[in-house]
Parts: sequence; C-alpha cells; structure tokens
Amino acid sequence: MTASDVFTIEPWGLRESALELEHLARTESLFALSNGHVGVRGNLEEGEPSGLPGTYLNGVYERRPLPYAEAGYGFPEDGQTAINVTDGKIMRLLVDDEPFDVRYGELHAHERRIDFREGVLQREVEWTSPAGQQVLIRSWRLVSLTQRSVVALCLEVEVVGEEARVVVQSELVADEDLPVRGGDPRVAAALKEPLVHETGHAKGTGATLVHQTRASQLRIAAAMDHETECPQDVNIGTELNDNWARITFSTKLRAGETLRVVKYVTYGWSQQRTVPALRDQVAAAMAAARDSGWQGLVDEQRDYLRWFWERSDVEVDGDAELQQAVRFAMFHVLQAGARAEGRSIPAKGLTGPGYDGHCFWDTETFVLPVLTHTVPKAAADVLRWRHSTLPIARERAHQLGLEGAAFPWRTINGAECSAYWPAGTAAFHVNADIADALVRHLQATGDETLERDIGVELLIETARLWRSLGHHDRSGAFHIVGVTGPDEYSAIADDNVFTNLMARRNLRAAAEMVARHPRLAGSFDADHEEAAAWRDAAEAIVIPWDDELGVHPQSAAFTVYERWDFAATPDEAHPLFLHYPYFDLYRKQVVKQADLVLAIQRCGDAFTPEEKRRDFDYYEAITVRDSSLSACSQAVVAAEVGHLGLAYDYACEAAFMDLHDLGGNTADGLHMASLAGAWVALVEGLGGMRDEQRLKFTPQLPDGLDRLAFGLVRGDALLRVEVFPDRTRYQLVAGDHPVDLCHHGQDVRLSPGETVECSQERPPVVERPSQPPGREPIGRHSVTRRLS
Amino acid sequence: MTASDVFTIEPWGLRESALELEHLARTESLFALSNGHVGVRGNLEEGEPSGLPGTYLNGVYERRPLPYAEAGYGFPEDGQTAINVTDGKIMRLLVDDEPFDVRYGELHAHERRIDFREGVLQREVEWTSPAGQQVLIRSWRLVSLTQRSVVALCLEVEVVGEEARVVVQSELVADEDLPVRGGDPRVAAALKEPLVHETGHAKGTGATLVHQTRASQLRIAAAMDHETECPQDVNIGTELNDNWARITFSTKLRAGETLRVVKYVTYGWSQQRTVPALRDQVAAAMAAARDSGWQGLVDEQRDYLRWFWERSDVEVDGDAELQQAVRFAMFHVLQAGARAEGRSIPAKGLTGPGYDGHCFWDTETFVLPVLTHTVPKAAADVLRWRHSTLPIARERAHQLGLEGAAFPWRTINGAECSAYWPAGTAAFHVNADIADALVRHLQATGDETLERDIGVELLIETARLWRSLGHHDRSGAFHIVGVTGPDEYSAIADDNVFTNLMARRNLRAAAEMVARHPRLAGSFDADHEEAAAWRDAAEAIVIPWDDELGVHPQSAAFTVYERWDFAATPDEAHPLFLHYPYFDLYRKQVVKQADLVLAIQRCGDAFTPEEKRRDFDYYEAITVRDSSLSACSQAVVAAEVGHLGLAYDYACEAAFMDLHDLGGNTADGLHMASLAGAWVALVEGLGGMRDEQRLKFTPQLPDGLDRLAFGLVRGDALLRVEVFPDRTRYQLVAGDHPVDLCHHGQDVRLSPGETVECSQERPPVVERPSQPPGREPIGRHSVTRRLS
Repeated sequence: MTASDVFTIEPWGLRESALELEHLARTESLFALSNGHVGVRGNLEEGEPSGLPGTYLNGVYERRPLPYAEAGYGFPEDGQTAINVTDGKIMRLLVDDEPFDVRYGELHAHERRIDFREGVLQREVEWTSPAGQQVLIRSWRLVSLTQRSVVALCLEVEVVGEEARVVVQSELVADEDLPVRGGDPRVAAALKEPLVHETGHAKGTGATLVHQTRASQLRIAAAMDHETECPQDVNIGTELNDNWARITFSTKLRAGETLRVVKYVTYGWSQQRTVPALRDQVAAAMAAARDSGWQGLVDEQRDYLRWFWERSDVEVDGDAELQQAVRFAMFHVLQAGARAEGRSIPAKGLTGPGYDGHCFWDTETFVLPVLTHTVPKAAADVLRWRHSTLPIARERAHQLGLEGAAFPWRTINGAECSAYWPAGTAAFHVNADIADALVRHLQATGDETLERDIGVELLIETARLWRSLGHHDRSGAFHIVGVTGPDEYSAIADDNVFTNLMARRNLRAAAEMVARHPRLAGSFDADHEEAAAWRDAAEAIVIPWDDELGVHPQSAAFTVYERWDFAATPDEAHPLFLHYPYFDLYRKQVVKQADLVLAIQRCGDAFTPEEKRRDFDYYEAITVRDSSLSACSQAVVAAEVGHLGLAYDYACEAAFMDLHDLGGNTADGLHMASLAGAWVALVEGLGGMRDEQRLKFTPQLPDGLDRLAFGLVRGDALLRVEVFPDRTRYQLVAGDHPVDLCHHGQDVRLSPGETVECSQERPPVVERPSQPPGREPIGRHSVTRRLS
Repeated sequence: MTASDVFTIEPWGLRESALELEHLARTESLFALSNGHVGVRGNLEEGEPSGLPGTYLNGVYERRPLPYAEAGYGFPEDGQTAINVTDGKIMRLLVDDEPFDVRYGELHAHERRIDFREGVLQREVEWTSPAGQQVLIRSWRLVSLTQRSVVALCLEVEVVGEEARVVVQSELVADEDLPVRGGDPRVAAALKEPLVHETGHAKGTGATLVHQTRASQLRIAAAMDHETECPQDVNIGTELNDNWARITFSTKLRAGETLRVVKYVTYGWSQQRTVPALRDQVAAAMAAARDSGWQGLVDEQRDYLRWFWERSDVEVDGDAELQQAVRFAMFHVLQAGARAEGRSIPAKGLTGPGYDGHCFWDTETFVLPVLTHTVPKAAADVLRWRHSTLPIARERAHQLGLEGAAFPWRTINGAECSAYWPAGTAAFHVNADIADALVRHLQATGDETLERDIGVELLIETARLWRSLGHHDRSGAFHIVGVTGPDEYSAIADDNVFTNLMARRNLRAAAEMVARHPRLAGSFDADHEEAAAWRDAAEAIVIPWDDELGVHPQSAAFTVYERWDFAATPDEAHPLFLHYPYFDLYRKQVVKQADLVLAIQRCGDAFTPEEKRRDFDYYEAITVRDSSLSACSQAVVAAEVGHLGLAYDYACEAAFMDLHDLGGNTADGLHMASLAGAWVALVEGLGGMRDEQRLKFTPQLPDGLDRLAFGLVRGDALLRVEVFPDRTRYQLVAGDHPVDLCHHGQDVRLSPGETVECSQERPPVVERPSQPPGREPIGRHSVTRRLS
C-alpha cells in the first residue's frame, strides 16, 4: 500500500483515511505542526506506536564531537544536533484499565486531517478495546502562529458501549527514548539523554520542568496546564519526577458521555537566562494561552491563516493534485518561517531530525524568495539571524586566512558544523547566496531600515570574502578557484559559473551600498577605494565557455571530463553517492543538482536566450537530481526556454517530494527547499516572474492547466496575477502607488485597485530534451512509480 | 644543547658521548636496530627512562576504527596500526638493591655507539648508585641480519668498589604501557593492550610467551634464553605471568669481578599458524641462535655487513659530516629492507610508530632504487610483497568502479588505510610508482624469474587501472582528471604531469610485457588488442604546458593559480598544513614536495634541457619542502641543470634529516625515504647516474668535494664509480661480461676487471635559483640553525 492510497485529494487539506503503521514516521512529518519557534511532529497523542517522537525548539541543540581519522587545520571540532526537547504532546488514555493503543483491540476507523485554512490537526478514532469497550476518540492540536510559545491540544473521549472508567494521563516527558540514528557510538553517546534536570514543580492541573542540555548548556523550560469538561466528576492526580510530570484525569462515563481535556503547553529556552526567569517566562505564556482559551487560539489561528492565504494563495486549475500539493507546500513553508524570529529556518524546518536540524544555503536560496514575496517580515527575520552570526563568520574567515565573513555550510548557531571539507569549507557560494537573498529582499520590499541595520555590513563583509578568495591572473582576469559549487557531484573546481556570477552580484551590490551609504560603510572601514576594487574584480571575473560545444562548462574544464556512464548505471544505484565513490563522481560529467541551470535562473542577464537553450539541454542530459534542490530550478529554466510540459513535470516533482516521499526520507522531516520550490516552479517557472528593478512576467500555461493564479507582495503593494492559456490578468489588490511591470516584454502600469489584462501567444513547440535514462522527472502522471 | 653536540663526526659510526634525557625518543630512533623483520628501538636495557619503548615485527598490526563525521561510499572503515610487540630488550640491573637508573645516583660516563661495519649497538656506563656503590656496565645488542628471528643482547656488570650483590632481571613484557598518541579516544582504546595472552612457559634460563592481537587476530610468539659467565655462583630464578616472564640472575661480585649475561630473543608471528606451531618456531630459532652463540652472531653480522659495504659503500671525500651521514643512511636503509622478505618496508622502517607503521609510495619511489642497485634481492622481496596484495588491490579497484588493481595509499597488509580522500583515494600515482620501480628493477637486474612471477601480472593490472581511470576527450587526447599528484599541497587536479608521464610509462611497459609474454599475458586475459589500447592512451596522454610562461604547469591550470603569499608566511608557520587550511593550500601555487621536479627526475626523456632548467627554476621558487620526500629529487634535478652547489645542499638536507632531526619528528622513527634520498642525491644527483637501457652518468663535483665514489650492482656486474673534480674512474669490479655505459654522452665499454678513466669539464656557472624566503635548503654549513 502506498501513502497516496490513504490520502485523499482535496484542495485545502490533507486527509489520511486509515493509519499505516509502516509509514508512521513519514506521516508524522507530513502532519507536523510548527510556527518556526516550536515544532511538534504528528506523533499520536498516546505516545505509542510512534515512528520518531519529535518536539523541537528552533535553536536548541546539543554539542557533539566531530570525529576525524585524519584531522586537518580548520576542521570544525564540534558539531551541533537539534534535539528532541521535553515532549508535551503526550495524553495517554485508558479505558477500563486498557491502554488505548491502535495495535491492540479493534480499530474501526482512524482519520487524521488538517485544513490549511485552519492550521489545526484533527484526529478521529473509533476503537474497541481488547476487553470489548468501544469509544470514540477525537483530538485537535495546534501550534499557535499568534502565540509563539504555545502548543495546545484537545482530547475528547466518548463512551459508546457500557459505562466505562476513562483515565487520561497528560504528560511532559524529557529525554524520551529515540531510535538510534547514525553509526558513531561517540555521537550516539553524546546525544543520549542530552537533557539534565534542573527544577520542576507540579500542582493541581499544571506542571513545569526545567532542563539544561549537557554540553551546549542551553536551558529549556516547558509548562503544561489543563481544562476539563465532563458530565461526571473528574478526579485529578499530580505527579512529578526529574524527567517527567503527569496530570491524571479519571472519571466514569456512561454511553454517549464525553470527557474533554484541553491541554496547553508552553515552551521557553535561553542560553543566558536563569532558571527562575525561564520558569516565569513559560508561566506568563501559559497565562496568555489560558486567557485566550482553546477556542480563542483556534480563532486566532484561522485569522492568521486567512490573512496569509488572501495575499499568497496559489491557485492551479486543471490539476487537483498539484493544487493540493502547492498549498501543502506553502502551509509548511509558512509554518517553518512564520515565527522563527531571530533564528534560522533549518532544511527540514521543525518537522524532523534530518540533517541534524541544520540550516544550509537552502534557506536563502529556495525558501526566502517565497517568504520575501508572501510574508516579508519572516524573510527579514531570517536575514537578521544570519547577520547576527557575523562575528562567528568573521572568525571563520580569519581562521581560513580570508577577509570579511565566511558563513558556514551547515549550522544551527552560526558555527561551521560541516566535517566534509570539499563540500563544506569549499562551498563558498553560500555567502553569495545569503547576499543575493538580502539584495532581492531589499529590492522587493524597499525595506530601508533593514538595509541600514544589516544590509550594508553584510554585503561589505561578504564582498571582502570574495575579493580575498579570488585573484587576478597575469592577464588581469579574476578567478575563484578550488571551490565547490551547488552541484555536490563536483568539488574543488575552478571558476564555477554559478559561484562566479553570484560573487559578481555580491561584489557589485556591496560597491553600490558603499556609494549609497558612504558614512555607514565608513563605520565598517569600507571606502570608495575598496568598493572600486570590488567593481574591478566583478568586471574581470572569469565565466568559462566551451566554444566548440557552444555551452558553458559548469566550471573550468568540466565539459572535457568523461561523461558518466549513465547506460551502465542501474536505477537502484541512486542516489549515486551511496553507490559510487565521490572521487569518481567529482571527475566526471554527472550533475547531482542544478548548478549551471541555477546560474541561469538566478543570473539570467549573463546568458543570451540561445545560450540558455543550449546550456539547459546540455545539462538536462547529465543531471540526475539526486538532490531535492534541483527540480524547481529545472522547472524555471525549462519554462523560460520553452519546455512547458517539462516545466510542469518538474513543478510536480518539487511539489510532490514529501507527499509522495520521492526521496525516501520524508520520515526524517520535510524538504523545505523543495516545498518552497513548488511555489518557485509555478510563480517563477510557469508565471515567468522575475523580480529585478521591476517585476517582469512571461507567463505561459502548459497543456493540462487552465488557470494559474498567485499573489505577490512587493513593497506596500499586493498583486494578484491570474494566468490563462491565452492571457494574463494583473490586479493591484492593495497599495497606494501605481506599479510598473512587464508582461512578455510589454510595459504595463497598474494603478491602485486596477486590473489589466494582457494577451500572450503560445510559444513554439520545441523538442523536449532528454534526461539520463531512468532520471526523467517524476511527472504528474507517474508519481506512483517511485513510491516505496 | 643540541643533538649534534654529543655526537661525534666519524666516518664509520655513530657515537653519542653523553645521554640527553630530553632527546631520548630521538636517539632511540637513531640507535634503532632492525633487519626488516624484527626491529627494536634504542631503548635502554633497564627499561626506564624511555622516550618511546618499541619492538616491532614487520606486518604485525592491530585493527582500529577509522571514524568519520560524514562518511562516504568507499571510505575505509578499518585502519591498521603497527604495535609494540612483546619487549625482549629489557634487562634490569640492581646493585645492592638499588635499581640501576641513570636519573638517580651519579652518572660518571655514558656512551652509546654503533659501527656500521659491525651492526652491534654498544653502550658503556660508569655509574655510582645512590648508596655509593660504583659499577661499570657494558652492553652489546644486535638484531641479526643473518638469522632474521633473532635479537641478541649481552650485558656485563663489573663492580668497581666494594663487594656488591648484583641482580639482573631479564624479561619478556607484553602490552607495555606507552605514551598516549593521537586524539581519538576510540582509537586509543582500540590500541591499548592489544595483546591477548594465549600461552606461556618458563623453565631454567628460558621462557616463551604467545599472544594474539585482539582485533586483527595475529598470533605472536617470543622466546628468550640466556647464558652467563661469572667468577661467582649465580642464582637463577624463573617467573611467568600472562604478560611477562622474568629470569633473575643474582650473585655477589668483588671489585673487578664481572657478571656477563647473554640474552637471546627470538620472534615469530603468523595469521594462520597455531599456538604449538609458533611456539616450536621460536624454539627452533632459539636453538639456532644458541648454536651460533653470541660471538658467532657477532661474526656473522660483521661478515654480512662487509659484503654489503664492499659492493655499496658511498665515499665522500672533503665532507666528513656528509660521509658519516650517508653511511648512517645506507645502514638504516639496509636494516629496513635486508630481511623484510614478503613484507613491506614501512615509511619509518621498524624504527618507530610514526605513520602507524604504514607503507606508502615512498618505498617504491625512494627506497627501492637504492636497494635495486645495492641489494637487489631485498628490492625484489618488496616487489613480491606488493604483488602478493594484488587480490586486495583488485577488490579496491572494483569498489572504486575501476578496472585492474588500485594499490593503497597507505597500508600494512595491503588494504587501504587512508581516511583522507583527496590525498588518499585520489593519489593514484602510487600504482605507476610501483610499476615503475618494478620496470627499473627488471631493467637493472635482468631478473626474468621475477618478470614472469610477478612482473607481467602487476604491469597488466596497473595498466588496466590507468586505462579505466583516464578517458579520451573529443579530440582524442587522453586525460587523467581528478587525481592527487605527489605534491600534497594540491589535490583533485587534472592532468598532473607526474601522474600522466608515469601512467604513460606504466601503459607502455605493460604493452611491452604482453608482446614479450603473449601466453602468460593471455592467462591474465590480456591480448594484443588490449595492449594496443594501452599504447594509444599512452600516445595520446595530455602533458599540460604554459606557453606564455614557457614552463609545465604541475597540473592543468596550476600556473594560473594565485601564488602563495610567501612573504607574509612566518618561518614558524611551517609545515604549512598545520597552520593553514588544506583548501587554501590546494588552490594556490605552493608546492609541498617535488612533483613536477620529480617528473623531470623520473621521466627526463619527456623534457628538453631548456624545459628542465626553466621548470626547475620556476618550481624552486614555490616549493617549501614541508615533506622529507623532496630534497633528494631537488638535488638530482639541480645537479642535472647545473646548480651543483644547490644539489650539494639538498643532498646534505636529505642526509641530515634524522641526524639533525630537521623535521622535528625523528622521535617517531627515521625517515627511510629521506635516508634513501641521501644515496639518490649523491648517485643520481652528483653522479648523474640514470639506469635506462644502459647506465648513463654525468658526474660533476661541487666545490668542496674532492671525490665521490659509489658501487652499483647491475645484473651480474658490480661497478665501482669514482668521481674526481676533473675525471671519473669506472671499474667493473665483478661480472663476467663487458658493460656498456655512457659518460657525459660518450660511450664507454668496461671489460671484466677493467678500469676506465674519463674526463669531464666543469659546467658553466649558472645563477642559483631562489627558494621561498626562509625555505632555502639546510645546507652543509647551516644545519644547526634548525635544530630544536
């Protein structure tokens, strides 16, 4: 049975009509709730069975050793791993002494669903205990988007048959047992029971636990409190231990009677604040939550989401499955970023332990373009977080013998955690990715405060990195050698086109900042001389070109390399890095993920239309997409060069990544960049949106889609774009000033409230390029093929 | 105080006139004895104080985990570390209950010396115990070059003052406590007490211990037996434990009386043989040793060394220090290889635990040329060992997706132990180095048995590796990309000149083998078609050339890279890899060790004289010699292009590497490749010897040297070459056939017993090239500068 068999296709929600125990970890990720500050996986309230219990606080990690058989100068010694914090989801149920466990007794019906307009995970269960007592169980759960410390649950138990004793044990549990992950016993040891008890108290229906992480010394407080509704008296018991607290509700219900327990959980953590301060913090959050009450929290949640969807909804007419998937995707991107506030957005959001909870370049490159155009404040918060790590990045640059700042390849707190140097240390493009996300955000929002607060300094420090990393050769050409580009099947390459083009943008943007803010730049010791050196380097940067083939080598000499023997590579040998040595992947023409194609997407002005077409076709034939960070970029460029059907297929692949578990690892958490990529593929791809000095669109619908509509925030303007096969309608939904945009090269001015309709022609049909055998996109009609 | 202050300069020996406790580990290496099968460090007989106790059996290692923070496909999981086996050197002495310990009482005199013609380490001590009892202690020690399992010691104690009770405790000790090395606690744990007791027995003056290594399951037996001479009765006690056995000799001596204890120790080890078999093996070796007796062993040792020096001695007139150093070097190279017989020659020989006791490319590239021309049987044994690891190398090649055999970067038993992929997996040149050493050996010896036994198969399998590793580009040029050449400050480079030229030799040699031995080649499935493909690849191989600079880039694009900022690099920042990140070293023009210059040395026919001159000067300016594998190659090419003074300086640096501890790590063991390099620098450098189809010489003496003489074995011929400033004398000392050679381009035929004298002109004086600041060679007059 595949995941899709129990999931229904519906426009606004995700509904699972039966519980599949073998896919529990996967569905826990799909049903994860988060607000960017707190995240809880979709674990069953009763705690067991579970795939992977998970409650995460953004920024909370444990330190662990990074072992090396042969260490080297500058290799990071400590890693960071996001940990499962105190679990407040658990509400066990006993019916006449029989614990409710779906694996025992008889499960008549089990449904979980979430409506993306409401943000509440609901569950309905009909169950007969082994002793024959039948009950209806309903639960609701939310992680508040308006009160960022608050998780709230509501559990209702209705007795169907004879009178029964019903007991609900609601808990806080620290240091839960987790399945062992990874192979290194030292790492496993460092991460076993990372929480050390500090204090706890319990009284009546409430309890609080305060712990500290063993090595990283972060303090975490969790509190719970409850409200009950019941036609019968409810006895309440209170227990407290170092690592768990339990409030027990016990009653006797007759047929048709219901016990309802509402549980509020509040979280707080800090590196600096004391035990009393944190204890009081969660108590204050609890007071606010109880003040709102369950219904109040539910209402606030709905209001917040209404606000979000009104500005941001993407409508896809003609493909119900893609419609569902893109809303699922946007809902999770929102959940990951809404309230991150001063913290990163990890690659998996707060939905699972994958990638140790680290933040990569994914965040700025794939997630931020979506947030910048939908919830710009959330995007600004991420950029402010990056800026807050500048001291660590400066120190890292110094350690590497470079100027300016070197942001980490993977991190939680800003320190480099990558232990694999070719892909880690040498993947300097992350710095340009951050700078570019900032520049695009400033362009889209006109946020001058952000520009002054962080923009000037961040661009100056990253430009300094590039200037010191690169060098001029004898002829004056500026090279950046020995770096790893986006494609992780190449490493230690020279003059990677993506890296060089992005560095050029970075250098130029920094020079512009110095011109715009000379005094502020001066406070960072940057002057016009330094800016001139950046401009010179940008001007002289080398972009390799293979004249014979008429394509760009992804990096110098790349097109001279041997082509990977795709014909001899069996389907099951993907991802390749699990079946072939890196050294071999590195020295052959095989591309894990869009690299040159990403350069076309992000730095389109550096390519002629003909170059884009030829480059796209060339790389299409050698790109295996062993990364989830590829399909959306391929969709965007496919659409640009006229392969609309292919763009549509790639958009589907990006959107279905987790719903269909295309990577086979959704259990570890959702792929935020791929989910964001669904939006990118539709808005930048089929919508042809480019946000440069002004907004440009080249919308085109592939066969099979009747209409594509999306909202865009730009400055104080809110646009709505509706694409039909032959025309596009632009509406300025909100905003006081006219907006100039461009439709297929035609200038359009939108006045406030105005709607303008522009026509477009179908592009000429071009021959669809081929992919390596077996690596065709998981198109809209073939998704079941890859399901495990 | 520096090491040199207590060492005298003498032509045939090494003599230390006082004990320096702070340099104990270093002198233990210098005074190490070995025959290539068993090695014992120069630890004091009384066991304490010690720098680093060490007794090694070639091939005996313990398995240990290789930890990775981020592992990858094909990364080796297990490492191997040579271990300190059962220590048979210990002979403690008590004088009237006072243990003899140089740190207590009064040490009037302490001398250690070894004569390279005798191969016996001697020690003389005058000591007064804390209680005032004076004794003379003399010891002799040898590791037999004729009986490879045998270590023999002789201890004499003479009472000077009043009558005293003298006790000698002679021991076998397994699992000695060692200073902790390396940072990883898991590795340290795996290597702590690696020996597990199996059996032991003791009776009379003898004892035997049999142990097995915990993880690698190698069985080791050690036996000891004794003879005493004494004017008084000697009481003998015998004790046995799991991890130690002790024979105690106790007597009372009057002034002038001497107790003499001779100790024979024999070793055996096996992966397969049983406890009784090994026990009997060491007993048999013991019987043979006792049969020879102490004096017999001493005589055999002298005879063996006389044979060696008669054929191989290198005489340097005019530089007494270099004369001593080159004999020290040759003595240790002989010790490392003489009786290795089916095992490797590790980078440190059997003189210390450095590099985990691993064998690298050093052996074939630097050590074998010496042995091939002095003790060819020892060279053949090493090549046979490599060949014996072909099954493992084939498996490794298969794992890496390659054809043929991929020999390991570092190993003890043939399995890859390198955990650092860019320098490890990608350093494929080791395969061509092995093939080249084999081809040169066959050429020099005409050993047709070896050619048929191992040559054909080994060359075929390595050629297959190169053919599958490289590829033809669109124009038909054959590239080998993504490899690491000899220079470890570059990695993952394309078309490394050394690698490509050596691969070319390998491919051609293999093709020639198929032509010479079609039937034998057929048994390895090699035919003329395959050989033709090898020849084609060899013909088409790319040798990068920088037309603008008129030099060879070490690898493609190398000369475009930024030059390392040598001016800003302080002296104390060497070796650079301990102070700068690898990624930065990799992408700049800075060379750790001869790479292009090694290509000139080994594949001189691929370069014109003008190219050699220009290339040498270019690389001289960017080579920092942070490796001991560089000076000798720089000496050879310096001499060839006319920089005789520089060649002389580099020859001294190679020769003084350990005597002056230039690398600061002689404590961990001697640098076999650098010691061999002393011979190479003099014979190939100043002597200009090239052994190709026939022997060629271009001898030249630098100012300061009056005469250089050396012996060379070639086939059944033994040559003696004497170079004077204006002429060279060639003598065919042994051999039944005339030998054709070439002196400075002039053909010379030497008949048996004949001496021919040829004149040579002083080469024109050329400007000495410069090295990076502070990285000038440690010349003959500046060695004290670097001593710690």
